[in-house]
Amino acid sequence: MSAAGLADDLPEPPYYAVIFSSLRTAGDQGYGAMAERMLALARAQPGFLGVESARDAEGLGITVSYWRDAESIARWKQHAEHLVAQATGKRTWYEAYELRVARVERVASKHVAVEPLPR
Amino acid sequence: MSAAGLADDLPEPPYYAVIFSSLRTAGDQGYGAMAERMLALARAQPGFLGVESARDAEGLGITVSYWRDAESIARWKQHAEHLVAQATGKRTWYEAYELRVARVERVASKHVAVEPLPR
Repeated sequence: MSAAGLADDLPEPPYYAVIFSSLRTAGDQGYGAMAERMLALARAQPGFLGVESARDAEGLGITVSYWRDAESIARWKQHAEHLVAQATGKRTWYEAYELRVARVERVASKHVAVEPLPR
Repeated sequence: MSAAGLADDLPEPPYYAVIFSSLRTAGDQGYGAMAERMLALARAQPGFLGVESARDAEGLGITVSYWRDAESIARWKQHAEHLVAQATGKRTWYEAYELRVARVERVASKHVAVEPLPR
């Protein structure tokens, strides 16, 4: 992933994407620390390729994680620590969410010509 | 789509997603008006199912639009007015982007129990 947050160094498709769109409940309630921990944990999983994430001022967030295959996603879903986070997310952190598993078939990009300065 | 911005009323999969992740250049340069116009135009296309969009404070944006099939996406890509927007985007509005076309295979959701008030 580039410093600027685009997953621009993935292998050629096909690979998989998990599109997670969510509305947060009010207050942090441990969410920030969990999100950071889950990101670090996901990066260490076999088959993890990259991640992109944005949350706007109104609280709508979209995180797309990319994976080598559906098996890698299924394994990560069953990871013990991730299961706890999923349960707490459902109960506490998310007012609503949509999670979609999709097979990426085609990619087009515009890359920055030079590596941007760290932000 | 719910008032709150989640595409939570789509048909059962399979359907298609266009995941567009981008870094904006500085300044508006006509971007806001174009984005609004393209959204209205996309909604009117055959096969359009819904859209979710978030841009964070650092300028990273993710827009995911959902479509009935790959043909609907191909048709929208070739729409005359959209072609102009794509060219201007490449030249002016986006420092970098990744566009991925993916086939949604599986969905899990948590819906809000009551319809939220308009924001």
